[in-house]
Amino acid sequence: MRGFLIIGNEAVTEPFNLSDLPGAGRMDVLCRCVSQALFLSHSMRRDVEVYLLLLGKPNPPKVIKISSNELRRMSPDERNIGGHIRKAVGFKISKDWVETNSGIFVAKKNIEELLDELSSSYTICYLREDGESIRNEIYSIKNPLFIVGDHIGVKKQEEDIILYYAVKILSVSKLSLMAEQCITIAHYELDKHYHENFISI
Amino acid sequence: MRGFLIIGNEAVTEPFNLSDLPGAGRMDVLCRCVSQALFLSHSMRRDVEVYLLLLGKPNPPKVIKISSNELRRMSPDERNIGGHIRKAVGFKISKDWVETNSGIFVAKKNIEELLDELSSSYTICYLREDGESIRNEIYSIKNPLFIVGDHIGVKKQEEDIILYYAVKILSVSKLSLMAEQCITIAHYELDKHYHENFISI
Repeated sequence: MRGFLIIGNEAVTEPFNLSDLPGAGRMDVLCRCVSQALFLSHSMRRDVEVYLLLLGKPNPPKVIKISSNELRRMSPDERNIGGHIRKAVGFKISKDWVETNSGIFVAKKNIEELLDELSSSYTICYLREDGESIRNEIYSIKNPLFIVGDHIGVKKQEEDIILYYAVKILSVSKLSLMAEQCITIAHYELDKHYHENFISI
Repeated sequence: MRGFLIIGNEAVTEPFNLSDLPGAGRMDVLCRCVSQALFLSHSMRRDVEVYLLLLGKPNPPKVIKISSNELRRMSPDERNIGGHIRKAVGFKISKDWVETNSGIFVAKKNIEELLDELSSSYTICYLREDGESIRNEIYSIKNPLFIVGDHIGVKKQEEDIILYYAVKILSVSKLSLMAEQCITIAHYELDKHYHENFISI
């Protein structure tokens, strides 16, 4: 399994205009993250989960979970993914996951509740520029969940909780990359490691 | 300098609906390629050129050139980039580059004319799944221009010309990745090489 958690600091928690994804608290960033995490050319990766933590107005926090193995009818363009997210944020929600579409779920959870749930099945890895090089550490990580901030990064309030759960702090580049680029590179380094070592993913 | 040429096999050569980028010959793929080639978090790479070869209806071929050093008012979301492309394909064009916006140019060139022009300043590298690993070859490439196909790949007609000009055939992954993922990884391997060797980019 591979997981990705993206922190949407201002991502709105109500239905939004699909023709203005940046105006919906930079929902475009989250859409690109979903696309890069799930899709290969003409196919979808298996055993990938994406979690979007939406912290924007008017009803934060909300978490959207997308599970590649059950997902249907999603394409990799921002508008299509935005449509799925818009549908999910319109649901009446509780602490328990509610399925809004095949493979897409939404719940009212804060980051602590979410990481408490995920840390039982994933090795929590926080992607931060000053971390250890992902290339040097990749061999030691089983079932990673990578946490990445959006254009704003990760605020102290969330970071303190992330650091409590994180087993590793990893860096993908000396440059400050966009969130979706970090995801692509994390996949790439994992793919390369597993292929070179003939390990099944 | 780093260059990227993306082959848009069906990308339309007339203004299109920004709310249906996939329907415009998968213009969404080209928009994501531009985004991943040019943008870092909160900034733009310097010395990057992106070339989009549009081969779709009704007036192929058209080439759009985007030069990061002069580019203004572009943001990394698909719709914004699509707007710039839509404007460019609406221009009356000739064999010579016409500037349609600061840093964006359009011309009527086929792939042979384009590669003939670019091969004087770039090392032409063709990204194909069966190529040599980019990681092993990156040290030897100065001023690379990476050629990548869209969702359809590269057809024989264009590939024959590419192979004439290509100095290297490189692979970024054993998996069949989306075009924009190949671009992100090419940047990543180049960044890593240059940073580790203290070479200015």
